[in-house]
Amino acid sequence: MLGAAEVIRTAGYANATLNDIGAASGVTKGALYFHFDSKEEIARALIEEQHRVTREAAAEILELELTPVEHMLRLCMDLAERLTSDPIVRAGIRLTTDSSTFDTPLLDPYRDWMASFEELARRAEAVGETNGLISPEVFARTLIPSYTGVQLVSETFTGRADLIDRIHDLWRVLLTAIIPAEQLAAKLALADEVFTVKPARRRKRA
Amino acid sequence: MLGAAEVIRTAGYANATLNDIGAASGVTKGALYFHFDSKEEIARALIEEQHRVTREAAAEILELELTPVEHMLRLCMDLAERLTSDPIVRAGIRLTTDSSTFDTPLLDPYRDWMASFEELARRAEAVGETNGLISPEVFARTLIPSYTGVQLVSETFTGRADLIDRIHDLWRVLLTAIIPAEQLAAKLALADEVFTVKPARRRKRA
Repeated sequence: MLGAAEVIRTAGYANATLNDIGAASGVTKGALYFHFDSKEEIARALIEEQHRVTREAAAEILELELTPVEHMLRLCMDLAERLTSDPIVRAGIRLTTDSSTFDTPLLDPYRDWMASFEELARRAEAVGETNGLISPEVFARTLIPSYTGVQLVSETFTGRADLIDRIHDLWRVLLTAIIPAEQLAAKLALADEVFTVKPARRRKRA
Repeated sequence: MLGAAEVIRTAGYANATLNDIGAASGVTKGALYFHFDSKEEIARALIEEQHRVTREAAAEILELELTPVEHMLRLCMDLAERLTSDPIVRAGIRLTTDSSTFDTPLLDPYRDWMASFEELARRAEAVGETNGLISPEVFARTLIPSYTGVQLVSETFTGRADLIDRIHDLWRVLLTAIIPAEQLAAKLALADEVFTVKPARRRKRA
């Protein structure tokens, strides 16, 4: 799976050949076909794996005792970190956003994230963490596409080197829209903390 | 150019063949090669044409006597309308966002739009139309990628049928972030007006 991820991430789905994927995975084209019927099946398996990995990580974050807004910030940071470091996630997201990947576009990953963030926005409103000016539905169906675009443009400009900073910018705008005026400074400070890559944490992971 | 636009818009760049483009344009592959050295050259010509068309339309809108925020709203609506109706613009934007299109990504269209909106946000702040909470730079480099993502997800879900509504949603969030509280209701009402497709106008154009 890692070999396929690497080939698709760098070459794109349309340009990736089964020979390249086989070579990168250390197997022959025949062995690949033993497991997968087509390139499309490999791609769909990759997206499923990426979605599984990110949803599992999301479930862990959602178990932490945090406010709904903090949950949203940490989910976005976690995905941004995976998008810069995890080859399966990088390839899976590229396959999802590339419009030439499949004849039938994949909608479930978008729908899952929109539903999760709509629910979090609803909870945030219920506990008075947001100002009620933007409906949870409008918020979620704006945030997920905006995040998609921010990662796409960051990939185009810097290969995602500036992704965390650009997602931080997006959240500066979002927080200013949804947080009650008297709580805004504290929430912007929280975002500063969440969207900072901690050197100590990086070392521990390496 | 229209034939090439149609083939690339529907099949995507990687899947589009010179034979298909020739057939859709009513010319032979030989005739195509007389004008263009490669498929990449056709694609780059299409993007240039799309960028020229949209920048010309933008220049016309910027000549209207409007406030900077109204200029921004009308620019976004104009592009949304072109993205749903103009085959050159549809194909050009698809080529720009498809990550598998070129080895060297095209950054100038993004840069041009970011610079225009940063300047407009700066003017809006200077005339007191915005609250000064978001810097013009952060605003522009969030808006353009967010718009990119919103149109991409709208294309994926509805073939851009809901694009104007989703751009309207995006602006509900943006206005709530940047407009002074006492001017917000009026600006949201203005957005309602700008992002409404007027049936009379549609008939006149048809």
